[in-house]
Amino acid sequence: MAIREAFCEWIHQLQATICSALEEQDGKAGFREDRWERKEGGGGLTRILSGGTVFEKAGVNISEVHGLLPETLAQTLEAKDKRFFACGISLVIHPLSPLVPTVHANYRYFELYDPTGAVSDFWFGGGSDLTPCYLFEADGVHFHKTLKSVCDRFSDTWYPRFKKQCEEYFVNRHRGNEMRGIGGIFYDYLRPEPGISPKALLEFSMAAGGAFLESYLPIVEKRKGLPYGDQQIFWQEIRRGRYVEFNLIHDRGTLFGLKTGGRTESILMSLPPRARWEYHDAPVPGSEEARMLQYLKPRDWVSSSQPIPKTI
Amino acid sequence: MAIREAFCEWIHQLQATICSALEEQDGKAGFREDRWERKEGGGGLTRILSGGTVFEKAGVNISEVHGLLPETLAQTLEAKDKRFFACGISLVIHPLSPLVPTVHANYRYFELYDPTGAVSDFWFGGGSDLTPCYLFEADGVHFHKTLKSVCDRFSDTWYPRFKKQCEEYFVNRHRGNEMRGIGGIFYDYLRPEPGISPKALLEFSMAAGGAFLESYLPIVEKRKGLPYGDQQIFWQEIRRGRYVEFNLIHDRGTLFGLKTGGRTESILMSLPPRARWEYHDAPVPGSEEARMLQYLKPRDWVSSSQPIPKTI
Repeated sequence: MAIREAFCEWIHQLQATICSALEEQDGKAGFREDRWERKEGGGGLTRILSGGTVFEKAGVNISEVHGLLPETLAQTLEAKDKRFFACGISLVIHPLSPLVPTVHANYRYFELYDPTGAVSDFWFGGGSDLTPCYLFEADGVHFHKTLKSVCDRFSDTWYPRFKKQCEEYFVNRHRGNEMRGIGGIFYDYLRPEPGISPKALLEFSMAAGGAFLESYLPIVEKRKGLPYGDQQIFWQEIRRGRYVEFNLIHDRGTLFGLKTGGRTESILMSLPPRARWEYHDAPVPGSEEARMLQYLKPRDWVSSSQPIPKTI
Repeated sequence: MAIREAFCEWIHQLQATICSALEEQDGKAGFREDRWERKEGGGGLTRILSGGTVFEKAGVNISEVHGLLPETLAQTLEAKDKRFFACGISLVIHPLSPLVPTVHANYRYFELYDPTGAVSDFWFGGGSDLTPCYLFEADGVHFHKTLKSVCDRFSDTWYPRFKKQCEEYFVNRHRGNEMRGIGGIFYDYLRPEPGISPKALLEFSMAAGGAFLESYLPIVEKRKGLPYGDQQIFWQEIRRGRYVEFNLIHDRGTLFGLKTGGRTESILMSLPPRARWEYHDAPVPGSEEARMLQYLKPRDWVSSSQPIPKTI
């Protein structure tokens, strides 16, 4: 089977698997679905859960679109022809509890053509990153180790490289270079190279996406029952405000989608259900909230890293 | 007195006047202040009120900055020299009650120089716009009529021209061209022209800024005591989400400030204290919330416009 067909079939399966597992974990809320078509070609299936006992808002989208690239993008990509094909799965999960981290993952495949219609270029992109409001160090270690073990099956260089790209991408530059969360992996324009076949790239994306539940659900399981109060909810809303800032100010995918007539409802499904902005929201020095901020910078999560002391 | 000195003195006075009037209207909360300096030159005075009985969050900033224009901006402005001076007052008020509209106003003055240091170009910019969650038509009429009467003292053409600029600027293009609110006036690069002296421009900005309280406080006074419930709060948070979207995705001032090292806390003081995003938040047809949306497009507010029927 061609890469494109295999990847497209896989995103359908993964969407179904992830939604079922999240419903089971939640125990109450179910996903509703919205099938949509794109005027210029293709469409997608948006699946949304809201108001759950564990997940306040979760969106798991797949889309398969084709058409003509906007002029500026065609130039940037040095495309021989404007036709393109893209498909992918994209998810964002905002749990109800401030003690359960928000998570994002996205896996996509892109094709360009020459004037005869033959594939002239193709690449994969994707990644996953975790955004806690309160940090349990073991959760960060588990999340990173899971992603690293997938990367290591394909290349020793990928985890460090993709982790770094994630750290450089998910950053609120206007907030003193504060990372959105504790990172994960992020890759783009991943093309075949010596020793890495097209099939290996496909298998890698499928393995990384396939490890999503393993990277995230054990964390949910461990933290969802912990008690919290108004102070934790307040801090959660402040941190979600930062999530909104990143997505609307810096995220290339969001801005590209919104400015080129993408489906606004599906694109902005990534925004949290509640957010808050206070003037000077810096937490009390020495608090758990202040300690959390220390983790929002590049950090070694997989070797024997020193924990950040409880009181700073 | 030179225009620059007169304008700078005036923004200080206006800030004090507006803050006092808002404190009196609120009856409980007071403004705290934050004086800040800009490394490259100048500084400002941010005044913030939060947690009031009437105003949930209000920010009234003044700033006076100078330095060198970024290269791209210098080119856009065809500046002979990179030195610039800018000062202005900027305010955003988010009331607690969903029945009291959010309001924004901004009045500013800009100077460029030739290589000898003489002023080679200067202009005024500013405006004010109203963002209700629920519409009382009389409030929209009062707000627009107040601004129109200021404009009309200077030129018959200004209110229609500045109203149109406001309608074209405060728009969420990614939301089907929905206006952020019901508009007001917006002007930029306002320079002397035949029949309009520099002094007239100064007087106009001072008159428009000076009419702020008159345009807004009577609305607060009339609506602040009205009862509301959870449904109205929910809708307020949805509409505030749109306010966040405009400010972070489209507002040139916000993006320019954040991307050129402006003071993030002062720039983002415009964001609402609480906001909410739901997938498919369209209100029930025929509801007050659905009726409100009909007003978020260009509309004649000052002649005998037909009200939008209660049930649509």
